[in-house]
Amino acid sequence: MTYEGYEHLIDLIAQGDEHSLRAALEEIPPADIAEYIDQNFEVYSTLALLEKMSSEQQAEVFGYLRPQNQEQLASHMEVAVLAQLFRDMSPDERADLYALLDVKLQDAVMRRLAKRDREDLLRLASYEEGTVGSVMTSDYAMIPAGSKVDDAVRRLRQSAPDKETIYQIYVVDKDNRLQGVVSLRELITAAPTESIDDLMTRDVVLLKPEMPQSEAARIISRYDLLAIPVVSETDVLLGIVTFDDAMDVVQEEDTESMHKSATVGKLEGGIKDASPVLIYRSRINWLVLLVFANIFSGMGLMYFEATIETHIALLFFLPLLIASGGNTGAQAATLVVRGLATGDLSKSDWAYMLGKEMLVSVGLGVTMAAAISAVAYFRVDSIIVPIVAMSMVSIVLVGSFIGVLLPFVLKRVGWDPATASAPLVTTIADASGVLIYFGFAAVFLGIS
Amino acid sequence: MTYEGYEHLIDLIAQGDEHSLRAALEEIPPADIAEYIDQNFEVYSTLALLEKMSSEQQAEVFGYLRPQNQEQLASHMEVAVLAQLFRDMSPDERADLYALLDVKLQDAVMRRLAKRDREDLLRLASYEEGTVGSVMTSDYAMIPAGSKVDDAVRRLRQSAPDKETIYQIYVVDKDNRLQGVVSLRELITAAPTESIDDLMTRDVVLLKPEMPQSEAARIISRYDLLAIPVVSETDVLLGIVTFDDAMDVVQEEDTESMHKSATVGKLEGGIKDASPVLIYRSRINWLVLLVFANIFSGMGLMYFEATIETHIALLFFLPLLIASGGNTGAQAATLVVRGLATGDLSKSDWAYMLGKEMLVSVGLGVTMAAAISAVAYFRVDSIIVPIVAMSMVSIVLVGSFIGVLLPFVLKRVGWDPATASAPLVTTIADASGVLIYFGFAAVFLGIS
Repeated sequence: MTYEGYEHLIDLIAQGDEHSLRAALEEIPPADIAEYIDQNFEVYSTLALLEKMSSEQQAEVFGYLRPQNQEQLASHMEVAVLAQLFRDMSPDERADLYALLDVKLQDAVMRRLAKRDREDLLRLASYEEGTVGSVMTSDYAMIPAGSKVDDAVRRLRQSAPDKETIYQIYVVDKDNRLQGVVSLRELITAAPTESIDDLMTRDVVLLKPEMPQSEAARIISRYDLLAIPVVSETDVLLGIVTFDDAMDVVQEEDTESMHKSATVGKLEGGIKDASPVLIYRSRINWLVLLVFANIFSGMGLMYFEATIETHIALLFFLPLLIASGGNTGAQAATLVVRGLATGDLSKSDWAYMLGKEMLVSVGLGVTMAAAISAVAYFRVDSIIVPIVAMSMVSIVLVGSFIGVLLPFVLKRVGWDPATASAPLVTTIADASGVLIYFGFAAVFLGIS
Repeated sequence: MTYEGYEHLIDLIAQGDEHSLRAALEEIPPADIAEYIDQNFEVYSTLALLEKMSSEQQAEVFGYLRPQNQEQLASHMEVAVLAQLFRDMSPDERADLYALLDVKLQDAVMRRLAKRDREDLLRLASYEEGTVGSVMTSDYAMIPAGSKVDDAVRRLRQSAPDKETIYQIYVVDKDNRLQGVVSLRELITAAPTESIDDLMTRDVVLLKPEMPQSEAARIISRYDLLAIPVVSETDVLLGIVTFDDAMDVVQEEDTESMHKSATVGKLEGGIKDASPVLIYRSRINWLVLLVFANIFSGMGLMYFEATIETHIALLFFLPLLIASGGNTGAQAATLVVRGLATGDLSKSDWAYMLGKEMLVSVGLGVTMAAAISAVAYFRVDSIIVPIVAMSMVSIVLVGSFIGVLLPFVLKRVGWDPATASAPLVTTIADASGVLIYFGFAAVFLGIS
């Protein structure tokens, strides 16, 4: 009974039977049709496929397509067809599509829309990318304050097909100011003559359109909400953000943090569609910065030139020692960065986490020192073995120390803790590692 | 109007007015009360606070608490109170709590529950951590096939308060086998005498209890669903997974991938509560493995001992050159790993991504080479400058090549692509970097 729309569609298109394809398309979830289109994208065959659907289904499928494909299809469509698509799309999705079009096409579509749709579209399209306003929709269910329950249910029945959700109903005054929220669950279990005003919740979690979209996702996830209302400074209801949009935001934000953890900057619209120039730009700044930061490690090596020249065998252990500090530090930084992002850790946990990490890293350092001492014992002068072991423990401790503290420090000064990326922590740990290792060597081998 | 329950609660508790605290607790969202408790955890003051709430609210708050705190509270509660908590908690949350208790306490609670609750609890608690079964709940709304719409609405009204969601209603036959799904939206807009069988959707996206929980999250997010039914091999309805549980799963899975990106293994229950021993265990294996892997870089250095001894100045550029390969490779790997995880990339995109990355990395390498040549020009013999520049471009290309291909290769052989973590890619890039740099040096400086 599980529905695998994607495979089904491939079979149908391969068979080439127009009639059964048309019938089957109605039954296939729009997300599956969109996946098929994205995976096998070609403008003209896609336009032909879209023509076989009702305009409502076209609109739904369109909302799931990659932005780049939406843009290409739109520019190849007849303007009248495109305008119909705009009428059928949900307000938040059509605002996203509108932003992708060139100015000429935007004007052409706009001229064909009713005044109401035009105003709604312009308003939603005006919010900056990444804000609550940019992900909210204006298709919410509302009822006037003072309504009776049976009135409210009657209104909902009529408007249900057009709304993004009818499970949260917003109660507004005559100026459209939000007074409270009532759920459909509450409505259908209440007495028909009860007043909405007695039933509704007045303490509502609210958003403002200019808040970052991550805030909407955080609140929806924290309170397990279906939707949150977005209001203006004067409490006028502007739209709602629904749980499915919040899930997309969570995924987007996590992608951004993961990229940041490897010093990759913001990449709008996914790696597959990104142009080489865009990818280059998102990566080059940090790479060049890190090249210069690594000069310190080089300077450290040069400072100990004499030590290295007399005991060149020391170099054998250099890569594994400095890598160990970097790896342990990157682990610690990643744990703290993610803990801060999910709310598992708060700013004030720095001392607790540092204490715990020092305990852990002594264990890690000693184990790693033991492992490498076994190797060293068979390979080099026995005098080097304790130097390597001591260095390993110290380097791991320093790496962990940097890894734990850096994200907390960044958070304290108001930066994104994710800036404490693995490459940055590794670079700092590398330089410390060079100084620690050759410092020990210089002292114990009696060279300066 | 925005509700900031957490701050409100702090004020109230500081004021110490029992009466207004009791009244206020009813209005504060459970998630906010739970945050207050987790942030200021102490067993006896928390038990005193819980006593001021209704048992329903206690149950809701409990579900939001950290597992470690739930466990401590449960072991300090009277068994009768704990049993009441179990009766009021939602089935999925009480199954999680049950799994935290020691066997003696499990038995004591179990003896106090009604047969129906006992069976439900044992069934839900039997699913393995990380499966769909472990996150599903048995509080779903269902109606018998053949019902009329008005009948169905009447049943829903009665059962609404006990259900996790009543917005998706599952239609079952007399053996509890799933026949279809109808939404409350469809129900309230349909004619009262219409048959459910004509209204319901028969092609339903389904889950099996033994599937990984990430699959539930993926499907809910893909189709924008409120809930998905979980059925047995014979289509018997076992439970549902709701969007809010799916959001938690997404967060959990993303945490796991981020940890993996820095070679940290699975950490049950968050970094704050994890014991030092648990943290040590999740990190040590990869660290020791990488120590040994870095021996190859050391061997590379020793192979070029003669080159280094005659031109010790080469060492100055060693750290920044090998770090550059690692950093570029880690960027590429992170982009591909995340692309594969979100579905933006599929297995077959490897050639396309490799081609694009080679283009990008030539750009990155040339820019980084230019930057470092400027430094090198003022510092060392002019003969070294072209060696450093050539090495930079080659090392960056090799690092990117490894970074793009490794995740695709891992995916192909059935491993988690996230295993291509930054430290692993860096280690491989480091060894290649040593060989490339000193290889060029040996050739151009005429030493072998």
